[in-house]
Amino acid sequence: MARLATRLTERFGIEHPIVSAPMALAAGGALAAAVTRAGGLGLIGGGYGDGDWLRTQYEAAGNMRTGCGFITWSLAKQPHLLGEVLAHRPAALMLSFGDPAPFAAEIAAAGIPLICQCQSIGHVRVALAAGASVIVAQGTEAGGHGHARATLPFVPEVADLLTRESPDTLLLAAGGIADGRGLAAALMLGADGVLVGTRFWASREALVHQNHQAAAIAATGDQTVRSSLPDIARRLDWPKPFDIRVGDNAFMAKWRGRDAELLAAAEIEGPAYREAFMAGDPDRAAAIYGEAAGLITDVPPAAEIVARMVAEAAEQLRRGAGIVAEG
Amino acid sequence: MARLATRLTERFGIEHPIVSAPMALAAGGALAAAVTRAGGLGLIGGGYGDGDWLRTQYEAAGNMRTGCGFITWSLAKQPHLLGEVLAHRPAALMLSFGDPAPFAAEIAAAGIPLICQCQSIGHVRVALAAGASVIVAQGTEAGGHGHARATLPFVPEVADLLTRESPDTLLLAAGGIADGRGLAAALMLGADGVLVGTRFWASREALVHQNHQAAAIAATGDQTVRSSLPDIARRLDWPKPFDIRVGDNAFMAKWRGRDAELLAAAEIEGPAYREAFMAGDPDRAAAIYGEAAGLITDVPPAAEIVARMVAEAAEQLRRGAGIVAEG
Ligand SMILES: Cc1cc2nc3c(=O)[nH]c(=O)nc-3n(C[C@H](O)[C@H](O)[C@H](O)COP(=O)(O)O)c2cc1C
Ligand SMILES: Cc1cc2nc3c(=O)[nH]c(=O)nc-3n(C[C@H](O)[C@H](O)[C@H](O)COP(=O)(O)O)c2cc1C
Repeated sequence: MARLATRLTERFGIEHPIVSAPMALAAGGALAAAVTRAGGLGLIGGGYGDGDWLRTQYEAAGNMRTGCGFITWSLAKQPHLLGEVLAHRPAALMLSFGDPAPFAAEIAAAGIPLICQCQSIGHVRVALAAGASVIVAQGTEAGGHGHARATLPFVPEVADLLTRESPDTLLLAAGGIADGRGLAAALMLGADGVLVGTRFWASREALVHQNHQAAAIAATGDQTVRSSLPDIARRLDWPKPFDIRVGDNAFMAKWRGRDAELLAAAEIEGPAYREAFMAGDPDRAAAIYGEAAGLITDVPPAAEIVARMVAEAAEQLRRGAGIVAEG
Repeated sequence: MARLATRLTERFGIEHPIVSAPMALAAGGALAAAVTRAGGLGLIGGGYGDGDWLRTQYEAAGNMRTGCGFITWSLAKQPHLLGEVLAHRPAALMLSFGDPAPFAAEIAAAGIPLICQCQSIGHVRVALAAGASVIVAQGTEAGGHGHARATLPFVPEVADLLTRESPDTLLLAAGGIADGRGLAAALMLGADGVLVGTRFWASREALVHQNHQAAAIAATGDQTVRSSLPDIARRLDWPKPFDIRVGDNAFMAKWRGRDAELLAAAEIEGPAYREAFMAGDPDRAAAIYGEAAGLITDVPPAAEIVARMVAEAAEQLRRGAGIVAEG
């Protein structure tokens, strides 16, 4: 099998420049371990911070080397979880959505590389100030929370900034990457690797209701939407400017443009939403996936996803060199 | 100088798979001719349809081979302009933003290839039904009018659709492509070439106020926004779901969230907006550019833009093949 050798694979001692995203509740220990076993780097989704869930998932990961990611503004409410995870000696600690500065010193003291997911040039500057080893440039097409920039122009702009101001900092592209074409494109844009969510969310090992996966397979990439409604329903206090990309469905259609009404009704709608989500109800809660759903047609094991992405990227990159003719 | 040989260069008999966008009022004959002269294919921005402007620009293009693009819903109001342009034997006729079907027969009868710019999978199906020779998959990061999909995941999804249903139809990527990295990435995603707007808008030959170009150079890619406000101010009756990406500025901040108010005030605000736009006022009208502004630092001749893009893409593609290691 081909390998793709970049600064990321070298720095982290992995085979392929593919990192699985720390998707809250969906990316458990089994998924993270499977991605690492396949030659990438798997991240456990520490998410909002649930100590019991995390302990269970670290058990599921066994002795396999993984990393872990937290939602920064939520970790701030239970900062002790950071120490618990650092005690596992994760391959990397990823922070997204909020100011990483309060946690940077503890992560650095443990000698663990800090990955910061960024949605704007402003975020990148904050992450560099906090000493991030890896920047994830996340585009708006991504599944889950995010913001407005699109992956294709955002990644090279961040690459230029890093070249100028922090050339040793690595760069991952995130958002819309689900196959070897996206991986090859990200490398052309100047990334050292990719952070992949939706594609691994639709894997056997992901902790995702199969109805949700089926909805993503049926959807084209047109059928997702970025919105605050799911967070309003779940009464999650997300700070600006973040919202969440989900599959467009009856719930989203029902409440579109009625944020204030949903907020007012959250006492009833909230529990109903959470129950429908857990039950995989396709209409009464929104499944969390990105535009990459339009590229997904099956739910294979994570190892097969890694192998396919690498093989296809290698083929594209070889083909790419053949496009160049001396004139 | 390297050449990049794709199905597009072969089909259109050009050197490089780079097409300049038919930007209304900005892409005149001088720009289109310069892009063709440099080995790409230049399109004149027929825009909303102004016969006098078009005649002047065809004169400016001289004998150089160019194509022309129209805003479809606006062309429908003066369909005779299509015949005028077809009489010039354009290399291609591009239609965007509306149903191409009413014009497809006349274009086909003239033996001119039809390029359709698409913002969703639904649009692609309509374009194929109209017999498009080339599909442009346009991402939301693009400058000017557009919609919601992002270039990186949209292009391979369209490529898959074409492979299945219309393998002879060519595919261009548009939105966020301003340098050789973006061009190389687009080719990895399965495109046969790129349609480039913002980068050529910031060229010497573009018909653009230099204050607007200066604003784009100063901006990061974070500082653009997709909105209906400029169209409301200009009293342009844009159909759903299109809006326009422009540079974020004082005008946009002033009216944000106040669409109805601006509409009500359009009798006064409209002429003021148009006057400010023509005068290059940086605060009272919005300059039209996309997220790619974050990749732009100068206003070179169009030929230099083509040469740089090709050289950088060739370098990236050669480097890309070197990433692949047999393991
Ligand atoms: C179901 C789901 C849950 C996610 N949860 C988180 C999270 O808890 N923390 C985080 O940093 N990112 C989260 N993300 C975003 C990913 O980190 C990543 O940016 C995104 O998945 C990349 O885009 P893609 O989905 O197109 O691959 C989540 C994504 C998905 C699809
Ligand atoms: C100033 C400007 C004017 C535009 N006018 C048109 C137009 O009249 N018709 C059209 O089809 N597209 C128009 N576009 C969109 C382009 O066709 C193209 O999709 C876009 O520029 C690609 O993204 P980029 O700006 O990031 O290169 C315009 C774009 C810009 C920047």
